[in-house]
Amino acid sequence: MHNPIELQKIIEEAIGEIAYPVRPANLYEPIKYIMSLGGKRIRPVMVLMATELFTDEVSIALDVALAIETFHNFTLVHDDIMDNAPLRRGKQTVHEKWGVNNAILSGDVMMVESNKHLSKVDSSVLKPVLDTFNQTAQGVCEGQQLDMEFETRDDVSIEEYIDMIRLKTAVLLGGAMKLGAIVAGADEKNAELLYQFGENLGVAFQLQDDILDVYGDPEKFGKQVGGDIISNKKTFLHLTAKQLIKPNETDVLLGNHDTAEQKVAAVTALYDSYGIRELSNAKMEQYLTKAYQALADLDVYESRKTYLRELTKQIMERES
Amino acid sequence: MHNPIELQKIIEEAIGEIAYPVRPANLYEPIKYIMSLGGKRIRPVMVLMATELFTDEVSIALDVALAIETFHNFTLVHDDIMDNAPLRRGKQTVHEKWGVNNAILSGDVMMVESNKHLSKVDSSVLKPVLDTFNQTAQGVCEGQQLDMEFETRDDVSIEEYIDMIRLKTAVLLGGAMKLGAIVAGADEKNAELLYQFGENLGVAFQLQDDILDVYGDPEKFGKQVGGDIISNKKTFLHLTAKQLIKPNETDVLLGNHDTAEQKVAAVTALYDSYGIRELSNAKMEQYLTKAYQALADLDVYESRKTYLRELTKQIMERES
Repeated sequence: MHNPIELQKIIEEAIGEIAYPVRPANLYEPIKYIMSLGGKRIRPVMVLMATELFTDEVSIALDVALAIETFHNFTLVHDDIMDNAPLRRGKQTVHEKWGVNNAILSGDVMMVESNKHLSKVDSSVLKPVLDTFNQTAQGVCEGQQLDMEFETRDDVSIEEYIDMIRLKTAVLLGGAMKLGAIVAGADEKNAELLYQFGENLGVAFQLQDDILDVYGDPEKFGKQVGGDIISNKKTFLHLTAKQLIKPNETDVLLGNHDTAEQKVAAVTALYDSYGIRELSNAKMEQYLTKAYQALADLDVYESRKTYLRELTKQIMERES
Repeated sequence: MHNPIELQKIIEEAIGEIAYPVRPANLYEPIKYIMSLGGKRIRPVMVLMATELFTDEVSIALDVALAIETFHNFTLVHDDIMDNAPLRRGKQTVHEKWGVNNAILSGDVMMVESNKHLSKVDSSVLKPVLDTFNQTAQGVCEGQQLDMEFETRDDVSIEEYIDMIRLKTAVLLGGAMKLGAIVAGADEKNAELLYQFGENLGVAFQLQDDILDVYGDPEKFGKQVGGDIISNKKTFLHLTAKQLIKPNETDVLLGNHDTAEQKVAAVTALYDSYGIRELSNAKMEQYLTKAYQALADLDVYESRKTYLRELTKQIMERES
């Protein structure tokens, strides 16, 4: 078995060895670029970890891990276009560097590259691998669509929000775990438990992201603290506050402020007065508990689960 | 066996029966919309025709036919964004109707839908079906990239142009034929011959498109006759003329004209003086001959090839 750091290294090496076509250069350079921007490679590491619960032959899961990472990066390329984002991991986004049309098309071909990786799995698991991957990919697209629609809606409920982040973020973690299980030949019950583990961890992960966006340490948080508040993003914190505040406080949450700093300060103070941080933490813990429960129910030796618990801790204790 | 019209009807019915998810509506409505705009369904009909060369069980090829048609429509949605096209088959393009971001995302999920159709084929042919489909999809993306790049390049050669239309248009026809052969259990040689048939027919098809754009009957041609001339598109006609003209005629081909009508008239007259139409027809015939040769070499009863010859004739004698 490999610890998370070792698995991340395996992934990095495998990404470095992918031989994309050379021509047309402008189609494939953006793929190499975005794939090399790094990140923690959490999703492909999760694929490999799921596989290592059942077998030491981690290499059998490498193609699926690459498919998941390529797909994830494809969503980043297209989401960044839709969000008009200039930066990704501190570097220019693909559409900023190569133009929107090029970014659309490079993203499209990344989807094909994902499917090419997938098609290399052993034929005995090809069909369930495809089914799980396609269902996952579809969920992620649905989540992105809902996320965009929520921007212009004023009646988003907390349940809808949780369902949106489940689709946009969590199903991919669930899918990664389940795919790792499938290629390892896990039975259906274990594969489903691992899906539940990943999905619940994913919701917890995103809730924590929302909390960090407001309460993160500015020195350690990669993005601008308060970004969600400034853009009126309907996060769990925002929606919970909206439910609790008095009518005369609506202006603080939704109204205009002289400066962005003032807005962040005022809304954070409002959050504080209603214990929004604690409510959000409690919600996050709820999903984390479900994730740990699925892991506990999993029918493999406890010793095999150690690294997965370690990864979960790392993910949930992150500060950026 | 079914004639082209019957096969088109089978496709239309199958498209009508696809059950897309209902929610989020704005993600799936565009798919239903573009898929219902019609067209001649040439690509999925080709899949079914290839299958019917070897077996009467045309239904085994239906999922692949739907995958190909869905993929084709996905490329239309994304290409129309890149080309900033307001109309498709006389109706609003998806991005005009739902916005660019929505069109990007609906296109993305169409790619997933294509793969879902594909994954339903018999497990005995799943792997070769995926390989052929992915190679085809990749080629189409490469072709679109080259097409975009050619817009800003002044040194495009005729060979490069042919290779671009081969990728952008022809490999999908080749892939459709080969996929139909694979699901029918055809041997590799026959599958490859059918690929060659489709690819060469595709190049001939696009060359004819270029010819029709200049010499089509305005009453029957769906688009504005001369559109390629007005936009200085580097078609086979344009590139051939560029090679043949005298230096003092460069201005006619590439320079400014008072009106679009004058430009079309002047460039068409230039084409006429160098016999560009005949040269283009000859090139088109060259590819058509290769296509017919592949069909002749195919190891199935001649009687089985009748409808494919009929379809080819229909395609090549079209006026729009």
